[in-house]
Amino acid sequence: MSDQLRERIFQELESITLIDPHTHINPHAAASTTLADIMGYHYYTELAHSAGMPREHIEEPGISPKEKVGRLVEGLAHLDNTIQLSWLLDICREFFGFEGETIDAGNWEALYDSSQQKMAEEDWEDQVLRHSRLEKVFLTNDFDDPLEGFDTDRYIPCLRTDDLVFHLGKASTRQRLEKATGIDVGDAASVVLACGKLFDHFVRNGARACAISIPPDFSPAPVTTGTVDPLIQRLAGGDELAAEEAATVSRFVFWTLAEFCSEYKLPFDLMIGVNRAVYPSGVYQGQDLFDKRVSLIQYRELFNAFPKVTFPISVLGQTSNHELVSYAWIFPNVVTNGHWWYSNIPTYIEQDTRSRLEAVPRNKQIGYYSDMYKLEFALPKFRMYRRVLAGVLAGDFVQGRGWSESRAIQFGQQLLRGNVERIFGVN
Amino acid sequence: MSDQLRERIFQELESITLIDPHTHINPHAAASTTLADIMGYHYYTELAHSAGMPREHIEEPGISPKEKVGRLVEGLAHLDNTIQLSWLLDICREFFGFEGETIDAGNWEALYDSSQQKMAEEDWEDQVLRHSRLEKVFLTNDFDDPLEGFDTDRYIPCLRTDDLVFHLGKASTRQRLEKATGIDVGDAASVVLACGKLFDHFVRNGARACAISIPPDFSPAPVTTGTVDPLIQRLAGGDELAAEEAATVSRFVFWTLAEFCSEYKLPFDLMIGVNRAVYPSGVYQGQDLFDKRVSLIQYRELFNAFPKVTFPISVLGQTSNHELVSYAWIFPNVVTNGHWWYSNIPTYIEQDTRSRLEAVPRNKQIGYYSDMYKLEFALPKFRMYRRVLAGVLAGDFVQGRGWSESRAIQFGQQLLRGNVERIFGVN
Amino acid sequence: MSDQLRERIFQELESITLIDPHTHINPHAAASTTLADIMGYHYYTELAHSAGMPREHIEEPGISPKEKVGRLVEGLAHLDNTIQLSWLLDICREFFGFEGETIDAGNWEALYDSSQQKMAEEDWEDQVLRHSRLEKVFLTNDFDDPLEGFDTDRYIPCLRTDDLVFHLGKASTRQRLEKATGIDVGDAASVVLACGKLFDHFVRNGARACAISIPPDFSPAPVTTGTVDPLIQRLAGGDELAAEEAATVSRFVFWTLAEFCSEYKLPFDLMIGVNRAVYPSGVYQGQDLFDKRVSLIQYRELFNAFPKVTFPISVLGQTSNHELVSYAWIFPNVVTNGHWWYSNIPTYIEQDTRSRLEAVPRNKQIGYYSDMYKLEFALPKFRMYRRVLAGVLAGDFVQGRGWSESRAIQFGQQLLRGNVERIFGVN
Ligand SMILES: [Zn+2]
Ligand SMILES: [Zn+2]
Ligand SMILES: [Zn+2]
Repeated sequence: MSDQLRERIFQELESITLIDPHTHINPHAAASTTLADIMGYHYYTELAHSAGMPREHIEEPGISPKEKVGRLVEGLAHLDNTIQLSWLLDICREFFGFEGETIDAGNWEALYDSSQQKMAEEDWEDQVLRHSRLEKVFLTNDFDDPLEGFDTDRYIPCLRTDDLVFHLGKASTRQRLEKATGIDVGDAASVVLACGKLFDHFVRNGARACAISIPPDFSPAPVTTGTVDPLIQRLAGGDELAAEEAATVSRFVFWTLAEFCSEYKLPFDLMIGVNRAVYPSGVYQGQDLFDKRVSLIQYRELFNAFPKVTFPISVLGQTSNHELVSYAWIFPNVVTNGHWWYSNIPTYIEQDTRSRLEAVPRNKQIGYYSDMYKLEFALPKFRMYRRVLAGVLAGDFVQGRGWSESRAIQFGQQLLRGNVERIFGVN
Repeated sequence: MSDQLRERIFQELESITLIDPHTHINPHAAASTTLADIMGYHYYTELAHSAGMPREHIEEPGISPKEKVGRLVEGLAHLDNTIQLSWLLDICREFFGFEGETIDAGNWEALYDSSQQKMAEEDWEDQVLRHSRLEKVFLTNDFDDPLEGFDTDRYIPCLRTDDLVFHLGKASTRQRLEKATGIDVGDAASVVLACGKLFDHFVRNGARACAISIPPDFSPAPVTTGTVDPLIQRLAGGDELAAEEAATVSRFVFWTLAEFCSEYKLPFDLMIGVNRAVYPSGVYQGQDLFDKRVSLIQYRELFNAFPKVTFPISVLGQTSNHELVSYAWIFPNVVTNGHWWYSNIPTYIEQDTRSRLEAVPRNKQIGYYSDMYKLEFALPKFRMYRRVLAGVLAGDFVQGRGWSESRAIQFGQQLLRGNVERIFGVN
Repeated sequence: MSDQLRERIFQELESITLIDPHTHINPHAAASTTLADIMGYHYYTELAHSAGMPREHIEEPGISPKEKVGRLVEGLAHLDNTIQLSWLLDICREFFGFEGETIDAGNWEALYDSSQQKMAEEDWEDQVLRHSRLEKVFLTNDFDDPLEGFDTDRYIPCLRTDDLVFHLGKASTRQRLEKATGIDVGDAASVVLACGKLFDHFVRNGARACAISIPPDFSPAPVTTGTVDPLIQRLAGGDELAAEEAATVSRFVFWTLAEFCSEYKLPFDLMIGVNRAVYPSGVYQGQDLFDKRVSLIQYRELFNAFPKVTFPISVLGQTSNHELVSYAWIFPNVVTNGHWWYSNIPTYIEQDTRSRLEAVPRNKQIGYYSDMYKLEFALPKFRMYRRVLAGVLAGDFVQGRGWSESRAIQFGQQLLRGNVERIFGVN
């Protein structure tokens, strides 16, 4: 395809003001204060560790932010091929005026100091949002988050439910749940009651989605009260459950959440396929991987049982994308959602985007979310996506199918913004 | 690659007269009579339904063809990105002189009326075949099809065996079998006898293939008479079988069919990987999906046991293509067959074609079949394939390996026509 | 991307002197003596057989090398599309001055004779190495190889352990082991002792790696002496083990090897995913295939237990590449290793290379190995890889990310040579 065509479309896509539909932003500290906030992102620590830096060196307790950055810089040369490092360079160039080709021993201190000065400006958070054309940002809130002290119109709450579904067996989870809802979980009915209170609290505070990440071997299914009651009672009595019993409780809680999503008209974001702590000696947040032997057929019963719930679905393994395309092609309530984690690299984004744009109705695709922990990452990550998207629109639609440029750009706008507004009910 | 080179090769491929080796054409009503025949294709109804249109709206009993088209047009805007909709536009442009960019509320009635007039022409079927350069069309015939009243030289019978293998447990299947063969199935021997009669009937009427679609969890294996006899006897006595027992019967029937394919020298088309009725509330023919966790290793014993039977193999999930390439690379009796259903979109056709052209002997590849229900679809579907194929031939062979254009085009001819002739014994 | 850019980078990559980190070269007869040595490579015999030539025709005992070549030439026309045949043409052009477009009935005898003359030159082996810019070549040695009579600086030993892990149950394996080590295997301790002797022997003779190919259903795990002792005792007593018992022995031997890799600081090459003898009627070495339903999660415990052992990993199925990229991204001891067998075709090399270059630290990628049986194959196989790599570097790095050409070329050098030196400790 012609490079100019792609570049023109890319520039148009760059001008779109965004709503980021999934992040891990802390609304009380949304922007970074030092380069350590940015380079402490697990992508850098885990890649530096993978390339040879000992975890103890990276995560030594008590080192200053500047010391931490200095140490990580020692390892960057091994990562300079990665797309993740290109995000870091993009951030430093866009926000801190960095002009080098690489961040290295010779220039990092100057960069550290100048960036710190920049981030100390009072309106830094607003500057980042404005420069990134970022209007609203979805959060990932613990179920017991009070949702207070921030602007829920800008930072949109989202009820994250991993702990409820997969860790109700822990006393700490049940204690947090009791503290948040006043309900002491002792049987199935009390779990339902507590979940209802959480949904009520979240929806009253502007939540627009419920979300969960799920291991490859989980298959949602309804569970009768009679089956689950004795298990929850044993939990409440301090027992530990066997693995299959714990899975039954997980299925019960999961199904309960889906019922509340239906009642409260909340989309239920499913992030399918992660195995936690596969590498327990890894750095913080750098321990999870996956087993590609997972199928959306495991969600067959769920999709059929909740026709009124929209399920925006992310898959961790790239080999799951074809199933996702096909399930979104058939099920009205299945929506493709972004490019998650290990699939979030241009090679796979390109393949997955091409297939989705070709075979999934255009109103059922959420193009991208940043998954960021700090605001500065939205810009380079969305830019990466927009670059790929511009190439697909230019090649497959304008050149391949004779679409006008403006028609292709409108399609891009829908993927980047329009569908987010409609599916989650924000605007 | 140069656009002109690809275009020249594409035009040469477009000039090839086709034999379509797999369709669902009804030879008694091969062409469409209204736009509803075309837009009623499950690709459109299921995508419109997936994009938000209620099934009841699409499938309301008693609505006229024109009303049905009018309703579907309401939903087309959400699908205008899909490759399936591009087929529809291609049909309307090529056959009905349509000139719009989209089919919408403002133009569909005129299109409906003009197309109806065109389709009412007495030689419409011949016109479509001629304009599509389509010479012969393989059918998909129920096992009890009398195969009468049509030209079996143009419309080539193919014995479809899903019902026999997977639904012999239904009384209705056994009744149909008795009616077709005169044999009342009561034990293994009678099943073999009945199957033999079917093969005899089909081959006498020009059948060139046996075919079946298979769920992901099926593994063919021989079954002894001693094992299956009591099961079939129980079926005949009105019993229901347990799932594993029914699977044993399926394996027995399947193996019996393979033996007759060997005896009658019929290729056995295997379409591997479909789960039926995953979404039972979906529209007609829009309910099936798949589980990608299937492997051709499940067919190891079959491929070894029947060296004289050619198995043209289609896989439903794109992630099965590499296995297919590798098994066709090793097994003399395994042939790659087209791009099936959920894999039948340019992104995947391109990847799969590139790998097949690089690693499977050229005489063991059937490039494409349309899978159409109405004749008008051959043109846009084969055109989509030919466009992709032209790109692969231009990029990987002419530019990448220095082949002459004519050599690349000859290769394309073999994939599109020559291998179909030789493998199925038609010409 | 611009064709000139890619070509310039390709030429630079072509000039790199190689160390080939995995081959099946016989150091006592490294180069070919007739075209039959080259065309007898299983890629040609199995493809010719797959395309229709009977095995008996190809492998008839007693036929002369020339007769064998003549027979294979009859079948080449069906394979002329395959990338494997392009290697053959490359060899004939580069080494024997062949100028035809195809090898056929009209020219093969002249080619045979002229090539034989060439290969008879006294320094043919050196000529091939020099012309291929090949400096060192890793071998694949049986565990009982005396490693004598060749230059272990040029031909680097590698301890291949399939027989030990998967065939210790055969009396012949235990006899070979006894002959090689003087130890009669009778219990777990003697197995450990014997393995230690093998490592000692190999390392003293310059071995730089331990290697094994593994079926898809194998999961490494530690096994206690108490568990395995009775099993090995029964083996020594002449018993046959049940499948699950044999798997326990395999796990024990495998884990023992990993422990010695740790002690002797040898990388442990894992080639994951092959099913042996799937097509037992196939030609020699043309009988193996795979089941894509394998996951690197099966190696979780191994990777955690041996942080000091580097595991260069090859995967047989292309759908395993994303897991490999992700595991190499997280685990410091997991390294991506080349493009193996059924994945070793440009379509898949391109996809896999793009994803690895984007997401795996650059010091953890071994770009390519030839897997060759005769020296003449290094040139065309590495050239194929370098062509793909040049395209990825030109497109994704120079054009996509604004890298200078020299920076991209340095990256390519590291993938092709630098990492091989460092990871295996050769230079
Ligand atoms: Zn997240
Ligand atoms: Zn079909
Ligand atoms: Zn090898």
